[in-house]
Amino acid sequence: MTVKEALEKLRSFEDTSFALGHAGGILNYDGSTIAPKQSAKVRALTQGELSRISYELTTAPETVEMIETLKTNENELDFVTARKASELYRDLDHMRRIPKDLFVEYQKLCVESDAVWHEAKANNDYASFKPYLQKMFDMSRQIALCIEPDKDPYDTQLNEFERGLTAETCEKFFATLKAGIVPLLQKVIASPNQVREPLLEGNFPVTVQREFSDYIMRVMGLDPERSIIGETEHPFTTDFSKYDVRITTHYHEDAVLSSMYSVIHEGGHALYELNIGDDITTSCLGGGVSMAMHESQSRFYENIIGRSREFCGVILPWLTEHFPAQLSGLTQDRLYRAVNASAPSLIRTEADELTYCLHIMVRFELERMMYAGTITADDLPHEWNRLYKEYLGIDVPDDKRGVLQDSHWSFGAIGYFPSYAIGSAYGAQYLEEMNKSFDVFAAVAAGDFSPISDWFRERIWKYGKLYDPSDLFKKVCGEFRPEVYVKYLEDKFSGIYGLT
Amino acid sequence: MTVKEALEKLRSFEDTSFALGHAGGILNYDGSTIAPKQSAKVRALTQGELSRISYELTTAPETVEMIETLKTNENELDFVTARKASELYRDLDHMRRIPKDLFVEYQKLCVESDAVWHEAKANNDYASFKPYLQKMFDMSRQIALCIEPDKDPYDTQLNEFERGLTAETCEKFFATLKAGIVPLLQKVIASPNQVREPLLEGNFPVTVQREFSDYIMRVMGLDPERSIIGETEHPFTTDFSKYDVRITTHYHEDAVLSSMYSVIHEGGHALYELNIGDDITTSCLGGGVSMAMHESQSRFYENIIGRSREFCGVILPWLTEHFPAQLSGLTQDRLYRAVNASAPSLIRTEADELTYCLHIMVRFELERMMYAGTITADDLPHEWNRLYKEYLGIDVPDDKRGVLQDSHWSFGAIGYFPSYAIGSAYGAQYLEEMNKSFDVFAAVAAGDFSPISDWFRERIWKYGKLYDPSDLFKKVCGEFRPEVYVKYLEDKFSGIYGLT
Repeated sequence: MTVKEALEKLRSFEDTSFALGHAGGILNYDGSTIAPKQSAKVRALTQGELSRISYELTTAPETVEMIETLKTNENELDFVTARKASELYRDLDHMRRIPKDLFVEYQKLCVESDAVWHEAKANNDYASFKPYLQKMFDMSRQIALCIEPDKDPYDTQLNEFERGLTAETCEKFFATLKAGIVPLLQKVIASPNQVREPLLEGNFPVTVQREFSDYIMRVMGLDPERSIIGETEHPFTTDFSKYDVRITTHYHEDAVLSSMYSVIHEGGHALYELNIGDDITTSCLGGGVSMAMHESQSRFYENIIGRSREFCGVILPWLTEHFPAQLSGLTQDRLYRAVNASAPSLIRTEADELTYCLHIMVRFELERMMYAGTITADDLPHEWNRLYKEYLGIDVPDDKRGVLQDSHWSFGAIGYFPSYAIGSAYGAQYLEEMNKSFDVFAAVAAGDFSPISDWFRERIWKYGKLYDPSDLFKKVCGEFRPEVYVKYLEDKFSGIYGLT
Repeated sequence: MTVKEALEKLRSFEDTSFALGHAGGILNYDGSTIAPKQSAKVRALTQGELSRISYELTTAPETVEMIETLKTNENELDFVTARKASELYRDLDHMRRIPKDLFVEYQKLCVESDAVWHEAKANNDYASFKPYLQKMFDMSRQIALCIEPDKDPYDTQLNEFERGLTAETCEKFFATLKAGIVPLLQKVIASPNQVREPLLEGNFPVTVQREFSDYIMRVMGLDPERSIIGETEHPFTTDFSKYDVRITTHYHEDAVLSSMYSVIHEGGHALYELNIGDDITTSCLGGGVSMAMHESQSRFYENIIGRSREFCGVILPWLTEHFPAQLSGLTQDRLYRAVNASAPSLIRTEADELTYCLHIMVRFELERMMYAGTITADDLPHEWNRLYKEYLGIDVPDDKRGVLQDSHWSFGAIGYFPSYAIGSAYGAQYLEEMNKSFDVFAAVAAGDFSPISDWFRERIWKYGKLYDPSDLFKKVCGEFRPEVYVKYLEDKFSGIYGLT
């Protein structure tokens, strides 16, 4: 195969790959949002078939020849095409180490397991989910060992979400965080300046909350011609090119800010996907480069922006106008303190900025033990509860608010959680860098988020997968310094809680 | 290939075919209901790729060998498998006559053209849709000529929706209808007993109408675990096996019954799909057998049931309870007369039972002329308006309410329209047969639709594509006698309008 032939083949391969990903993604989104319950019976069949087609396409002799031809002749290719060649080669190299039957079986299991998890969480019924959970851990571990037989399979699994990340790096990073967060949290808990905002404990009709979501999406600059919002138990973002990006949220009548923060979080993911370069959006380089980079966007918008005093000032008029009975008397300062009230809690997605990473550490510990085989799915609820006591000092009342709370393990995102913490820490360095170019919070106060999105677009978003995630972060912020994040948290929470 | 090998191959072929149909169908449904506008940019790419994969699968040498092996050894196969063999052979025979590029190009065109039509209708902008419409006719005609080079391509096209149907049969059928309907309509128009129901011209909030749809779906017996309702400009039904059937409707605040009749109509389609046999639902025999058989279900529920005096009695309490201000004073008799008010009108889907088939005849004439090349897309609006004057005696004020009103041509359903009229006529014969087993309107009056669905399930629905549509109809009702339908209309409208 000549390079010219390979380049032609690459184009058709990218189209087919995109189409299969698009179709499978829409099936997932539909299944999570509106599909009738019994549709799960046939969705697993279809997802299995699509994965099989995808597997066969990627491992077909002419695809392999195309990828190898391009890889061998990398120096003849332009920068973008050379990157495509090396990315495809990496994927192929992984894929062909996994037996086809195992690959397809795992894809089907993910769909079934996710459906079972939804029911199990709703019914607080861990027992029904347990065999699926064990299988998810076993089979993903088996696949990790196919990909890299000589490596700790948990490291391989971490790499699926963040290239280059190891359990050892995570451990050091978490040690730094823990050393900063735990004593700070102790001071916060002991502080006489505790925060409680009864105004936010009223009743907020879902119909108005839906309008509020639309307002928040406008403020963030999410293009309504290319993005929509849906409703699911567990919020998520999914995309099918930059022309179709979807976020979901969950409304609680008694907690208007719960949905708002999930919209801002998912909105951060969505902004990344909406701003991938035009030329690569449907190619193999389309989409955000890694989960830590992705979470660094979502958590930046959610916390550094969304929990800033200035942002509270921006949304206050809308809130008091649309919830006049509930929120009369609310001020910017009261709102700012309320959205930053810190206390150990049960639910990760509802956790405040300070305690959030402790939730992540629990999951990291559990994943490592499951992969090491020192515990099984039988032990998970008990171990979950034990670690919540150890890290957060609280008792878990039931599995629904414990081990069943997150969707990640149910659909195969094992090794994903550390990305949230790394992404959170990246955010503090973005803020530092961004403030060298313009006054970030002055822009937020003015309700004009465009300098922020312009900054991200030019430095991160538009590149898609063109650079390795750690290289990209270094290009933007230099070395990763978790202590910047610790300092950010110390400054912020010392201010709010009047710590000395 | 041995028969045993072919049977194994059949199973995997059916799974893959189902998956590709499922994925493409969900993409369509999503695109029509909730997808953001610009997603159309990538949906056409994906649909094109899925069609290509589907084409390649169907025409792959091992598929061809499988189908030919089964076809040759039909007498060794059980009844169901033999039917599968002959159906697959027929599809293959058609498919392989169409050049792959043409096939894929046409699939893409359908997606693009449908998106353009949506915009064109919304903006009353025929000019923007015109080139697509011309291409749809040209390319579908070209494909029809690939399939059967020696046959009138319009007959080939009719066969896509109703096997065995010819333009000649349609002509005779329409002549019978016209001879019965036109003089009857003249009498209705001239009758002094004109119907107008001002109570139904009030304001009916969409939120309550949505609840009404749920109620109607319950009354009809649509299983909520397997069916959902969405909202689109143009209502439709789509299914992905009997475990996932979807209908859509459009709410008009000033016309509560408009949405109700679209729900009942689509609900009739949905009942058919929800009751396909378990063993064939994901196979190549899954799904309703033809469009006339399908429309015979939807139009039976919409008109023969839904516009009966007894049905009006069933829904009246719900309506007056939920719209007390608007509908106070409404009686069963007034409602019955109102839903059967007959007058020539502009919009097919809103047409009364008596004038409905005249709308179909207009479209039949136009399709024939377009296929014969005696008119082009340039002439369509003018010819549409001319025929509305001729058949219905009315002037079409704009293309939105004229040639742009239906979605069918935009996505390739050329030759579909006659199915509505044939299906309507079938309904009168079902009623005749059904009444031999039980009193149909007594069941309706009791609000118990199960004898009706049991009757259909055992005679039609469960069989899927196991029999040719005309054979199936004959098994149930004997010869097709359009005069039964004419008689039904005469009796019904003579009663309502006090004709002698």
